[in-house]
Amino acid sequence: MIKVSVMYPNGPDANFDEAYYRDRHMPMVNKLMGDHCKYYTVDRAVAAGLPASNTAYIAMGHLFCDSVDAFQAGFGPHSKEIMADIPNYTDQTPVIQISEVLVG
Amino acid sequence: MIKVSVMYPNGPDANFDEAYYRDRHMPMVNKLMGDHCKYYTVDRAVAAGLPASNTAYIAMGHLFCDSVDAFQAGFGPHSKEIMADIPNYTDQTPVIQISEVLVG
Repeated sequence: MIKVSVMYPNGPDANFDEAYYRDRHMPMVNKLMGDHCKYYTVDRAVAAGLPASNTAYIAMGHLFCDSVDAFQAGFGPHSKEIMADIPNYTDQTPVIQISEVLVG
Repeated sequence: MIKVSVMYPNGPDANFDEAYYRDRHMPMVNKLMGDHCKYYTVDRAVAAGLPASNTAYIAMGHLFCDSVDAFQAGFGPHSKEIMADIPNYTDQTPVIQISEVLVG
């Protein structure tokens, strides 16, 4: 299993519409990818006693797929539509990381 | 549910003993935290056609707990022992992020 993490950097001026991301963007990505996306998760930063701007990322989304090829097969044909939706919920440029899930 | 992500930065000189981390460090943390840790996951970077040093993190571990208080109750009493084990598998200083799991 691989995991594509999309991590939105935090900062004093970072904007992020959590409800849009959770309720519209990620369900759209999941639907467009079909069976190529096994499941997905969404996280938002917890301040935990620190100013929110001290956390590295304001929010993260993770797409779980059988392989890098499966991710590319599911995401590639829809990448323009998916990327075009990003300005609807944030002004941040995400950091993307593809990981292999060793324990999960 | 909250998720404590421990993210080890990548770099051309970064060292990371994946087997030690997966088979010794994370099971030790899980055991020490007892019921305060619901489960954990381990990821390692996939190059995906790019040089490995282009990925932000060489590896990540995630601890899932019911709350920030539960994490602190489980981790706090053992933090010295856990931190002292880090040099056994890496020379990198991890980035820590606490997130609330909105979808997961």
